[in-house]
Amino acid sequence: MSPRSESRSEPRIEPRTLKGFQDVLPAKALRRAQLIRRLEDVFRAHGYGPIDTPSLEFAEILKGKGGEESDKQLFEFEDAGERRVALRFDLTVPLARFVAQHQNELVFPFRRYAIGHVWRGERPQKGRLREFMQCDADLVGAVGPAADAEILVLMASAYRALDVGSVTLRVNDRRILNGLLERLAPGSTPSAVLRVLDKRDRQGAEVVLAELATLGIPAAAAARLIEVTAPRADAPATLTALAEAVRGSTVGETGLAHLTRVRELVLAAGVPPAVFSVDPTIARGLDYYTGIVMEARLDALPAVGSVGSGGRYDDLAGLYTNTVLPGVGCSVGIDRLLIALEELEGLEGGAGGSAAANAAKSPAEVLLTHPAAEHGPDALSAVFALAHRLRAAGVRVETFPEDKKHGQQMRYADRQGLAFALTRNPDGSWHGKSLIASSAQELPDEAAVLAWLASRSS
Amino acid sequence: MSPRSESRSEPRIEPRTLKGFQDVLPAKALRRAQLIRRLEDVFRAHGYGPIDTPSLEFAEILKGKGGEESDKQLFEFEDAGERRVALRFDLTVPLARFVAQHQNELVFPFRRYAIGHVWRGERPQKGRLREFMQCDADLVGAVGPAADAEILVLMASAYRALDVGSVTLRVNDRRILNGLLERLAPGSTPSAVLRVLDKRDRQGAEVVLAELATLGIPAAAAARLIEVTAPRADAPATLTALAEAVRGSTVGETGLAHLTRVRELVLAAGVPPAVFSVDPTIARGLDYYTGIVMEARLDALPAVGSVGSGGRYDDLAGLYTNTVLPGVGCSVGIDRLLIALEELEGLEGGAGGSAAANAAKSPAEVLLTHPAAEHGPDALSAVFALAHRLRAAGVRVETFPEDKKHGQQMRYADRQGLAFALTRNPDGSWHGKSLIASSAQELPDEAAVLAWLASRSS
Repeated sequence: MSPRSESRSEPRIEPRTLKGFQDVLPAKALRRAQLIRRLEDVFRAHGYGPIDTPSLEFAEILKGKGGEESDKQLFEFEDAGERRVALRFDLTVPLARFVAQHQNELVFPFRRYAIGHVWRGERPQKGRLREFMQCDADLVGAVGPAADAEILVLMASAYRALDVGSVTLRVNDRRILNGLLERLAPGSTPSAVLRVLDKRDRQGAEVVLAELATLGIPAAAAARLIEVTAPRADAPATLTALAEAVRGSTVGETGLAHLTRVRELVLAAGVPPAVFSVDPTIARGLDYYTGIVMEARLDALPAVGSVGSGGRYDDLAGLYTNTVLPGVGCSVGIDRLLIALEELEGLEGGAGGSAAANAAKSPAEVLLTHPAAEHGPDALSAVFALAHRLRAAGVRVETFPEDKKHGQQMRYADRQGLAFALTRNPDGSWHGKSLIASSAQELPDEAAVLAWLASRSS
Repeated sequence: MSPRSESRSEPRIEPRTLKGFQDVLPAKALRRAQLIRRLEDVFRAHGYGPIDTPSLEFAEILKGKGGEESDKQLFEFEDAGERRVALRFDLTVPLARFVAQHQNELVFPFRRYAIGHVWRGERPQKGRLREFMQCDADLVGAVGPAADAEILVLMASAYRALDVGSVTLRVNDRRILNGLLERLAPGSTPSAVLRVLDKRDRQGAEVVLAELATLGIPAAAAARLIEVTAPRADAPATLTALAEAVRGSTVGETGLAHLTRVRELVLAAGVPPAVFSVDPTIARGLDYYTGIVMEARLDALPAVGSVGSGGRYDDLAGLYTNTVLPGVGCSVGIDRLLIALEELEGLEGGAGGSAAANAAKSPAEVLLTHPAAEHGPDALSAVFALAHRLRAAGVRVETFPEDKKHGQQMRYADRQGLAFALTRNPDGSWHGKSLIASSAQELPDEAAVLAWLASRSS
């Protein structure tokens, strides 16, 4: 159809969305749905099942754990029953509440994934979203190298399945950092030291040296700290350097032995050695993680930043229960990945996926055109019958829903990115057109249609 | 693990959810995710792609259309920027706003599906949820029998794919009802008449007759109305009875001819005749739908009520644009279907699905147990390697993540509903246990493991 403009009283309300909230249009939404499905398949293949928790919680539940920063960002209000309520700002606090509340119904070790929207009243700067999606997987109630390795294997499998090119997992153990500071800068504050070390890439070692001095770290120790945390050729080289630096620190040696063992298990599960990088400066939420921490980056697009992260926490639900629930989890950054994929054009057919395939708006492959009225009512019935049989054979089919000019229907097929169009001839045979190859074929019957589609699609 | 209770200060916050908001636990969440995936596959096979709109909108957008009833149910509040905002109460108003706002980016006819949560501040009576899921598919910008038939074919295909047993689509055309009243009760109010007719099943024809009289409908006309709207053997019988009753009413005859043609097309698309029932008393949102209306019921569980509904509207987005956008759509009631499935146990393997399969909490099929520490570190590496290769072969595998007693691990497998457990023997071979068949098998190598799982699963 062409939407009609009629003389009518003016519409009363301007159609618009709130700042920081987005409409996801069909092409992007389909791509996101495809990514999420692959992610769910990976989670399930590792024994992680879904759970769902409410979007809205008692505000006290959500404010219990977060810092002042996240409290300020809450969408909090009073509901009709005069309760203080708020939209969740992540999926981890609801998981903690969930596990505490249902601990007698759940089986531990408890694996779950959750995919859903979260809300944060960020200042609406540089495209920051106030509603966005999180995809989390957590293993609650297990400690040790097997549990930690499992989450890393899960992450590596997820990015492989998402077909986003090679990914590096940068892994650390918080205890290694503690050991390093115990040996090289006793009494210093880990978060302050890390903030300074983080400037090396952009501002250089000189700046870092100077700033470490202001933290009271002697020059020799600071130089050693810079040297031992510098990137090395591979994980074994980094582990060797760290082993020397933490020697004598019990916590450091424990962390290093643990990380070494975790890496062995991850590699045993078929993750290529290059994927597992050791980086003693990765911290990610210092007040939260207590053991291993990791983040994922795309090798082809490091500028996109972290496309996933995770780590181990000692006590997930301490605010809600006195049962100690240690766990390890990860979060896959689906929105960042979507941005990256728009650059990589990698979703359909991997690196070979064409721009046209990515721009497709319809999830269908084939358009059956609407027969002209003069062909009689049976023509349309025949179109419905063919659509049914093609779908039964696994072909995704649209029928054009109105009696419009054939040229207009074909323009629609083109704009929607459909690969094929089929038109019924008055004699009951079919005219097939490939919109990709710009070729056409007369097809005497349904069997010929199916054979033609099969040969063209492969 | 067994969660440990430690002496610690008491937890500060009671873990609880808001009234009308629910946690969905793993078994039910997995089932719902499986249903949603099947539904999405059907939508996509018919050319419907996903879109996503914000959960939160300007309150004026959401309040524009709804009646006072839905306005009162809104979760409405003032955000940090002093804007009046509200959580969406359905997916149709956001669709209207979306289509008006993006009409120049979209290709018409526009097909979309949307699956998401909606929020309504219902009185918390008899298990009414304040947050629940909707699954909608709409075709916007097309009129005529092909468009209407398409939505009915889509609904029938959806329920078939969901494997919920036989379903009846009760279909009407609002114009048939208007024609009936034009002929039999001119000047009466359709909604009032329908409300009375609706009491027939529960209160009998006598009560209906009496109440129609109070509406000013003469006894003979009322009796005729009751007779012509009574259930008949099949759709053709109903259509014949209606044809006689609306003869002479242009609107009634138009509606009837339209519905007759829609039915032809739906049957041409392979929908069994018994699925398409004509019911002139179906109305569903009188102030909203303008052409065909339908609702779906499970034949095996009519008491569950409508498990889906839909219809045609003349002007979707009139509040937001002066472009006239007619459409037709349907909504599949996934929450009601879940309740029904709990009764039918139909999801896994159809009617033959076992209660055990439905109670499964893990999406995995196989547990690889954690080797005892005395078997050395290579044993755990071998478990990780086997898990990787089984997953590569398409098997969903959990590894037990801690070094616990074998019996404890097996109890875990049982509680999680896992079908198989594999334990590594000290010599590197594997011990396979079927938890369904309570049988065991020694398996010398990985190939034997794969063959055993394949033979057991089929």
